Amino acid sequence: MTSTLPRTLVAAAALTAAFGAFAQSNVTLFGVLDASVAHISTDNGSVTGLANGGQSSSRLGFRGVEDLGGGLAAGFWLEAGIGVDTGNSGGFSFDRRSTVSLSSNAIGELRLGRDKSPAYLNIETFDPFGDVGVGGIGGSNLIGSATSAAGTPEGSAPKRVSNSINYLLPATLGGFYGQVQYAFGEQLSNIENDTLRDAVALRVGYGSGPLNVAFGHGEVRGGTTAVGVDYKSTNIGASYNFGMVKPMVVFATERGNGRRVDLLGIGATAPVGAGEIRAAFSMFKRKDIDDADSKKLSLGYGYNLSKRTQLYGTVSRVSNDDRANRGLAVSSSALASPAIALGSSVTGYELGLRHSF
Amino acid sequence: MTSTLPRTLVAAAALTAAFGAFAQSNVTLFGVLDASVAHISTDNGSVTGLANGGQSSSRLGFRGVEDLGGGLAAGFWLEAGIGVDTGNSGGFSFDRRSTVSLSSNAIGELRLGRDKSPAYLNIETFDPFGDVGVGGIGGSNLIGSATSAAGTPEGSAPKRVSNSINYLLPATLGGFYGQVQYAFGEQLSNIENDTLRDAVALRVGYGSGPLNVAFGHGEVRGGTTAVGVDYKSTNIGASYNFGMVKPMVVFATERGNGRRVDLLGIGATAPVGAGEIRAAFSMFKRKDIDDADSKKLSLGYGYNLSKRTQLYGTVSRVSNDDRANRGLAVSSSALASPAIALGSSVTGYELGLRHSF
Amino acid sequence: MTSTLPRTLVAAAALTAAFGAFAQSNVTLFGVLDASVAHISTDNGSVTGLANGGQSSSRLGFRGVEDLGGGLAAGFWLEAGIGVDTGNSGGFSFDRRSTVSLSSNAIGELRLGRDKSPAYLNIETFDPFGDVGVGGIGGSNLIGSATSAAGTPEGSAPKRVSNSINYLLPATLGGFYGQVQYAFGEQLSNIENDTLRDAVALRVGYGSGPLNVAFGHGEVRGGTTAVGVDYKSTNIGASYNFGMVKPMVVFATERGNGRRVDLLGIGATAPVGAGEIRAAFSMFKRKDIDDADSKKLSLGYGYNLSKRTQLYGTVSRVSNDDRANRGLAVSSSALASPAIALGSSVTGYELGLRHSF
Repeated sequence: MTSTLPRTLVAAAALTAAFGAFAQSNVTLFGVLDASVAHISTDNGSVTGLANGGQSSSRLGFRGVEDLGGGLAAGFWLEAGIGVDTGNSGGFSFDRRSTVSLSSNAIGELRLGRDKSPAYLNIETFDPFGDVGVGGIGGSNLIGSATSAAGTPEGSAPKRVSNSINYLLPATLGGFYGQVQYAFGEQLSNIENDTLRDAVALRVGYGSGPLNVAFGHGEVRGGTTAVGVDYKSTNIGASYNFGMVKPMVVFATERGNGRRVDLLGIGATAPVGAGEIRAAFSMFKRKDIDDADSKKLSLGYGYNLSKRTQLYGTVSRVSNDDRANRGLAVSSSALASPAIALGSSVTGYELGLRHSF
Repeated sequence: MTSTLPRTLVAAAALTAAFGAFAQSNVTLFGVLDASVAHISTDNGSVTGLANGGQSSSRLGFRGVEDLGGGLAAGFWLEAGIGVDTGNSGGFSFDRRSTVSLSSNAIGELRLGRDKSPAYLNIETFDPFGDVGVGGIGGSNLIGSATSAAGTPEGSAPKRVSNSINYLLPATLGGFYGQVQYAFGEQLSNIENDTLRDAVALRVGYGSGPLNVAFGHGEVRGGTTAVGVDYKSTNIGASYNFGMVKPMVVFATERGNGRRVDLLGIGATAPVGAGEIRAAFSMFKRKDIDDADSKKLSLGYGYNLSKRTQLYGTVSRVSNDDRANRGLAVSSSALASPAIALGSSVTGYELGLRHSF
Repeated sequence: MTSTLPRTLVAAAALTAAFGAFAQSNVTLFGVLDASVAHISTDNGSVTGLANGGQSSSRLGFRGVEDLGGGLAAGFWLEAGIGVDTGNSGGFSFDRRSTVSLSSNAIGELRLGRDKSPAYLNIETFDPFGDVGVGGIGGSNLIGSATSAAGTPEGSAPKRVSNSINYLLPATLGGFYGQVQYAFGEQLSNIENDTLRDAVALRVGYGSGPLNVAFGHGEVRGGTTAVGVDYKSTNIGASYNFGMVKPMVVFATERGNGRRVDLLGIGATAPVGAGEIRAAFSMFKRKDIDDADSKKLSLGYGYNLSKRTQLYGTVSRVSNDDRANRGLAVSSSALASPAIALGSSVTGYELGLRHSF
């Protein structure tokens, strides 16, 4: 520990001669490494392995802010997902976020690049498990046809969106916050089919003291499937921190690809000793067909060795109706996924270590 | 800002036991993030999207220098291109530069690895738009058959070259500068065909006070096409900074693949207020066939919010002869390219934000 | 040089609101860039090119340790291989190591993620050339069927293993050290074939004063070949530093894929002036067929310009029996490999520059 030094890295600006003289700048290097032993079992067998990001997604990033004076600032953010189990065998990229921004204390922030969709943010914000690991609500692709083609507005439920222009409200509105996002489809103007157009999303909320409540909506026009699909997502969530316990609720509905799925999630976190209990119950309702609903119950505990390091354990179970086969998500590069038979239940647990820097 | 600290990062040398004791070293972290809204239109339609590096190529790098005493120094440079629009969806690599060097104040620098070709450097140095974005002169592949196979001397107009040994003149020659580059083809000695051999390039120049003038020449023996091609490039450029305006000119000629193209670029930059006006006019002449020339006119303005942050706008138009279909270059991972019909003109603009660190 | 500052980077912990307040942390940025001109010749011709990591594998890494108090610590390590010759044209990943750890001075370390196999470590530890470059003992895949599929226990001679749980002895055992590794196959429990199961490995050693001796053993159950193979590796090595010279010996035996190969390596390093002489003689014996042995003789010198920077030269020659065609390993993204005819000999040399930071 080097307590006499500031928290941020000090770097030389890489300015070519065209940019003028060298200037000093700050770069913050940050990250999370989270690994767990995960086990998933269903009627068709079980699988055990080393999973990645069971409590928080593993990542490595670089970011910085430049004070331009007069309440203005410029900034950048490059954040890459890390597969700690295999060392990113599929390749390293700034898939989580890559943005450059101009912001004003009074007016807000203009942000360009790849960022999370504001139509998705409530899903993870109001889930006690942050929508990761076996306990995560699994709300990023309710209608089950998401494609994750980077560089385009994804067909269904994009968790993150490339080619986007974002406007974020300033932090000076007495608790109100919000983000509007427009993402280019980047297709030719004279293409007549619907295979891909653009995406819009917004989120507005209010957070003050113990209360946090937010609404989100997004639309993707066209899609990456052969026949274009339009996708619409709407959700609302709230939490209230009573101190002893922080209950939270989220409702989301998603349409597209000929389907509609509703999700209701109810959960809570509660500080216990040096750690935190997490509990969540979720109901998934297929609106377009009968007898295809699912329920999920998750329970977990995280023990803080420090503010930066946590040991955690999570157990989760999904029950499926006769025509449903919803599974459990585990992030792992090589872990085999057991096939879930219609009507089967699935059980999973994780025991892990999360370290942030 | 932490003004009491030096500009460079302080890092621990990663020395294994075999290397001896730990030693202290400096690593500089640097980069540029540049994103713009770009629009390109031609007879066959138009496309709009978020482009990357409209004024300066987005990048992230690590570099350092070790003083060995007696005027000697060792150094390294790792620089990766960044796609801020999509977060490097195609994968992150040190494609811009990866070198290790030994240098002497008196004798010069020996540099090993992947570096820019000295036969290319004048193209970007004497273009007011630095050969990037819609306004860029587009001079890196005049004969239109470049292949960008990393790890080999590329077939045509290599902007960067892997497997190279470079010698650079020292900075103590009263304004004279220069670089000689040899890049291995890395093929077996007893292979008789011409599919790939090696590459040589050099650049010599003189820069002192307001004047800068430089000559470049490069040859690639063989190539990555099925039938080997030899490629030759020669160029010369000059600029003179009058203070109020800095005019510049570059002439380049390129032969290979059965073609020859000449390029004449005339341009200028001029400081205006807190920013800079950029203007360029370029003429492309196909010497091997008639009626296939092109002209390009580009105009831009960059407004400096600080030495590190700039807002910019550029507009550019290409006019093609009846047998030419030259287009406009925009760096974007997903942006569709409209097909340019023979004899059509193309118009493009970019409005962007560039931030360096 | 900034001698008043500590050796480690100071970074801001990237803690989201869920993790609590920001906390200060240290991140160490480290690396090696090593490039050489390499030449390999055999009966079928020769090849010359720019090679990577002739004396030490080129790399870039980030690591940190958090003191949790009471002798406990948490830590992480992300280390990527670098191809300095081409700038990682195949993509950047933390293929060398990606781990998160919890350790205790008294009990030892629990390490999760991708790490070197303890069954391999003696091979490089007791080779004067560290098993890299033309002089390297070439002991990482004796039976010649290694697959390097990241994310799974590789079929033969895994140098590094993903999905692993490691326990390392503490450094307080009077010179005794050791590591046990278990790597998940991550396959379904009800899969009956042998295509892939799991891997176990261990290493125990004693190092005190001039003496270092260690034993290693590893097994991979199943494999990534179509018909599963079991693989077993056992080795033992020792070195003794007399000051003037440090002799070392390693014996390794490897079975799998219907083969067995034994390796005996004898070598030494000796400080001479500001550098070090390295010499090694290795014998490879095919136990399953006759007349298929090989011998390798390597000689090298490294001249230290500083503790961080070395110029080196290595020459090596392999002699093959009538039914053997063992070659020389050079790390280079594009360098062509001459085909080695049965019974041919192979000669190689490297002249290089290694710089660490």
